[in-house]
Amino acid sequence: MITVNARCTCSPGGSFQSTTIRRRRVGDHDVLIDIAYAGICHSDVEHARMSRQGGNTLYPLTPGHEIAGVVTAVGANVTRFRVGDRAGVGNMVDACRSCPNCSAGLEQYCSKRVLTYNSIGRDGLPTHGGYSQKIVVDETFAVRIPDSIPLQNAAPLMCAGITLYSPLRHWNAGPGKRVGIVGFGGLGHVGVQISKALGAHTTVFDLSESKREDAHRMGADEFCVAMDTAAFSRLASSFDLVISTVPASVDMDAYLGLLALDGTFVNLSVPSKPVNFSAASLLANRRAIAGTRSGGLRETQEMLDFCARHQIGAEIEVIAADRIDEAFERLLAGDVRYRFVIDISTMADD
Amino acid sequence: MITVNARCTCSPGGSFQSTTIRRRRVGDHDVLIDIAYAGICHSDVEHARMSRQGGNTLYPLTPGHEIAGVVTAVGANVTRFRVGDRAGVGNMVDACRSCPNCSAGLEQYCSKRVLTYNSIGRDGLPTHGGYSQKIVVDETFAVRIPDSIPLQNAAPLMCAGITLYSPLRHWNAGPGKRVGIVGFGGLGHVGVQISKALGAHTTVFDLSESKREDAHRMGADEFCVAMDTAAFSRLASSFDLVISTVPASVDMDAYLGLLALDGTFVNLSVPSKPVNFSAASLLANRRAIAGTRSGGLRETQEMLDFCARHQIGAEIEVIAADRIDEAFERLLAGDVRYRFVIDISTMADD
Repeated sequence: MITVNARCTCSPGGSFQSTTIRRRRVGDHDVLIDIAYAGICHSDVEHARMSRQGGNTLYPLTPGHEIAGVVTAVGANVTRFRVGDRAGVGNMVDACRSCPNCSAGLEQYCSKRVLTYNSIGRDGLPTHGGYSQKIVVDETFAVRIPDSIPLQNAAPLMCAGITLYSPLRHWNAGPGKRVGIVGFGGLGHVGVQISKALGAHTTVFDLSESKREDAHRMGADEFCVAMDTAAFSRLASSFDLVISTVPASVDMDAYLGLLALDGTFVNLSVPSKPVNFSAASLLANRRAIAGTRSGGLRETQEMLDFCARHQIGAEIEVIAADRIDEAFERLLAGDVRYRFVIDISTMADD
Repeated sequence: MITVNARCTCSPGGSFQSTTIRRRRVGDHDVLIDIAYAGICHSDVEHARMSRQGGNTLYPLTPGHEIAGVVTAVGANVTRFRVGDRAGVGNMVDACRSCPNCSAGLEQYCSKRVLTYNSIGRDGLPTHGGYSQKIVVDETFAVRIPDSIPLQNAAPLMCAGITLYSPLRHWNAGPGKRVGIVGFGGLGHVGVQISKALGAHTTVFDLSESKREDAHRMGADEFCVAMDTAAFSRLASSFDLVISTVPASVDMDAYLGLLALDGTFVNLSVPSKPVNFSAASLLANRRAIAGTRSGGLRETQEMLDFCARHQIGAEIEVIAADRIDEAFERLLAGDVRYRFVIDISTMADD
């Protein structure tokens, strides 16, 4: 076993503490990754505080599923990585590898997938995330980070990036399509860049007028203050795809009204309350509400290569490991542009 | 103007009364249809009693949008019908005819469509439905009823038939697909026949065990008592398409759990309360909830021809026009197998 420094929280109301966790020995198919940066995702907060509807957290919890680092050891049968390679890990570290979903590269829908943290691995032990110095993972569940993306900007792509890229691709965002991104935060600001790079006309909806300039800088064609009713009327029935990144309840009927014929509203998060809407909002224009779960490994690699080609990365604020609690509070207050990333080297002295 | 006998109701709590309504003179593009039968749709009840969420009824109301009859006069420029032809009218009698939806044969999504009743026509007057002796309609909004379908069995196809046929076709029900039909009533019993004829494996969900035999007789491969939790567990993640015909709230999360990867739950009705579900139910398997609004004229004709080819028709109970109130009560109580159809000849003596 490999013992490494980490940060954990021990209860829904607890603060983060220094701890050590153990990683398995590097197996024949494993890579050992020295983590350089770990992004802080909203779902880290939800799990740490057990605030998600139906959520269940295994404490002590070491969150983190936006992991970027460098391979420092490889197992005997590893073929895709060498020591020194830049590698990323997202929200899964295992799956059954044989079901139709796994065979199709859609491991995120495998019923036996193992999440990077707050899950139980094949060894029967709880998994621990990226708020730690090292991780051991089967090479199948690691992806290559292109050289042109700095590791700190790449880390958030492992969740925020793929979680937007996958639905944008699945629902055919591209030239001639009109895409709305609801919420210009950690996910949204990456989504806008990807949507624009795919060629779609892209509109941002956010509560804060103060984000207008950044939205345009990152490629938004339009910026709309959420709940500007005049704008919603003007934009009615005009979108092919609206993706909500907002981890809270939104006025579903208002957003559904934006969808054109066969348009889809995609919800990425799990608000703490049930979603509700009027059935009539869907009947008009044969609209749909859909959900997605991040993306599979193959698509995650495709996303990273796409981002490298289009010079897309997360805009970040790097913090030391001792500032996770503060970052959580600021994240909940919307006070970050646009993703906190933990500099894992600051755990070295623990 | 043409004056004809009809039935109307004058308030949400009112009973049906004999009345006369006026139809416009037969214009150059119009056909005059002597109505033989009019089906009673659940939405007739919703409009008559103004019980739909956000509903607004123009009284006095003559409902009816499942109309089957015979053409008895044609305008100078009519090309598709001759006197003596069997013809049907569904839930629309006009649309803008020039928008992209109309051009695509999707008049049901035209923002200017005129409903068969409780709508305002181009002449600025309220429209009146099929609970009446005659209707005058532009030939574009009439379809041909194939000779092999008796008029009384054809009438319900004009709403129940097309409302199921359209989503079954749109979401690709066919060989190798698994379809669930929720609610084995006026819509559901036609939907099962169509789904089966399209080649899909078809499962019926209904609250009443007593409908099992009929469901199988009409083609269902499986029958499941709604809320049989063991069956829902067994069938989890196995359906490509679940269509709910139920005009009341259902346990959305339970039905969403039935959907396989990329499966869609289609809701056809407008329950009086908002629909609510857990976002997590959609994230798994990339599921979707969608709505549809019946079908366009081209597809309605296609549906009738399909039903004729496959010997599909509604199973009905024919009633005299004086029994509409009783039929509404029995419909609400689920006491009809499976559609009430008014014999319009019983209005002759008014």
